Amino acid sequence: MLYLIGLGLGDAKDITVKGLEILRACSRVYLEAYTSILTVGKEALEEYYGRELILADRETVEQEADEILRGADQTDVAFLVVGDPFGATTHSDLMLRAVKAGIQYRVIHNASIMNAVGCCGLQLYNFGEAVSIVFWTESWKPESFYDKIKRNRQSGMHTLCLLDIKVKEQTLENLMKGRKVYEPPRYMSVCQAAEQLLEIVRHKREQNEDLAISEDTVCVGLSRVGSEDQKIKAGTLRQLALVELGKPLHSLIITGHLHPMELDMLRLFAVDEQSLAALKAVDSSTFTS
Amino acid sequence: MLYLIGLGLGDAKDITVKGLEILRACSRVYLEAYTSILTVGKEALEEYYGRELILADRETVEQEADEILRGADQTDVAFLVVGDPFGATTHSDLMLRAVKAGIQYRVIHNASIMNAVGCCGLQLYNFGEAVSIVFWTESWKPESFYDKIKRNRQSGMHTLCLLDIKVKEQTLENLMKGRKVYEPPRYMSVCQAAEQLLEIVRHKREQNEDLAISEDTVCVGLSRVGSEDQKIKAGTLRQLALVELGKPLHSLIITGHLHPMELDMLRLFAVDEQSLAALKAVDSSTFTS
Repeated sequence: MLYLIGLGLGDAKDITVKGLEILRACSRVYLEAYTSILTVGKEALEEYYGRELILADRETVEQEADEILRGADQTDVAFLVVGDPFGATTHSDLMLRAVKAGIQYRVIHNASIMNAVGCCGLQLYNFGEAVSIVFWTESWKPESFYDKIKRNRQSGMHTLCLLDIKVKEQTLENLMKGRKVYEPPRYMSVCQAAEQLLEIVRHKREQNEDLAISEDTVCVGLSRVGSEDQKIKAGTLRQLALVELGKPLHSLIITGHLHPMELDMLRLFAVDEQSLAALKAVDSSTFTS
Repeated sequence: MLYLIGLGLGDAKDITVKGLEILRACSRVYLEAYTSILTVGKEALEEYYGRELILADRETVEQEADEILRGADQTDVAFLVVGDPFGATTHSDLMLRAVKAGIQYRVIHNASIMNAVGCCGLQLYNFGEAVSIVFWTESWKPESFYDKIKRNRQSGMHTLCLLDIKVKEQTLENLMKGRKVYEPPRYMSVCQAAEQLLEIVRHKREQNEDLAISEDTVCVGLSRVGSEDQKIKAGTLRQLALVELGKPLHSLIITGHLHPMELDMLRLFAVDEQSLAALKAVDSSTFTS
């Protein structure tokens, strides 16, 4: 049996009781390590789980799926995923390979950023399509996510923006020379995402395009959701470009239409008194749908 | 401290290790009991958790919030919620009251239907707004959710339909006479939801409206997601009106644009061989966006 086990979002104890019992009984335990991170490292997990964890990075999962699945028709293998196995990143590929190989699988669900963002008080069923915001480079500044945010806003929906994670990236030089030397991991902050969005707003304004968002659009920045030191800040896009949310992971929400209860909740997390007072005014003046 | 603790979706062991440790140390433990159900009852939870649980139904949470929060500034009180505390139903109201009363709160997240539906292979970030489908009566047949499904479909997005739950409903007679006698709980099945959608389709067709969905639209029915006997069936809306998914809770997904990997996953759950073969053809012929 292949067990796909979600670890939740915070630390070692965010695994479910069921997930913990199962992984402790498995013959091999893999830890998926490229799409997300917990606030604790591999060693802390190993100590708490009482098991050695085999790191499965992007290369392993895609190229060594056969090794992960080896013998899983006879024995139990666990594949641990931060968040939920079908959260922001999905593990459909591994599941499909298992099924094709005649291996049964079972999913042990957990919280993922896709549902835990509800903690800021915005209702999950008022979210439209989620988008990914990638790190811009000098020569590559994609704006495609803007159109999705626009579509959501036009329907009054909130947009969860998943922020870029660069793990095991190689410099062009190392890549060309075939050297497996990796750059330090990079995690996009809410500031960085907000800055890129502000640049898009300026750009669209220069081109006289109708704006779906502005510097005053109400946004919510979240960091380390589900952990003890999580931070939530609500304010205008301009404010969030200056807000310090600390260590990764960060997420950003662009709000759509705000219901009174949602607004009451966001006030708990307002960047400052002024933005707190402004939240309502800003919403009704800039939201056009 | 007020702890809002998600229980996940299956049985007693779907709570997180952290959640279990916290609730065992709380002075009072409430179980929210009106929006969702686990596959096990209150007694099984009490036995496993080793704690007496105070049932908090809709009346208690809304009318007796003060009682729930009583003393939570001095002692620890746990409020258990099936799924995640901020899943399909939110507990913003209780949180806001806590904050107003100067009581600290903490959320222990877990899986909810809002993210666990990913297990059918449809990508969570391809979902638009979620909708609720309510039980129709002879005289009340709201169709408003259809417009949301339409909007999602036009953008290529999937739609998660949360199906109605009627718990502690009173007959008109009992209500008028002030008798607190309640009807047996009712949970909408995927069949019933599909039937109502088919009736809307017929209705719209009679009125010569453009159809956002048809009898052949690919849908996914799910029951008891996250439990050992969960069922997933993919097929046309017409097929799902005939599919038997057993005990509650059920959920229905109306697909939007299907990516190849999503299609591969849905084939694992196809109602029959024909629908399996038809899935691809159906999708490309009926999906118009």
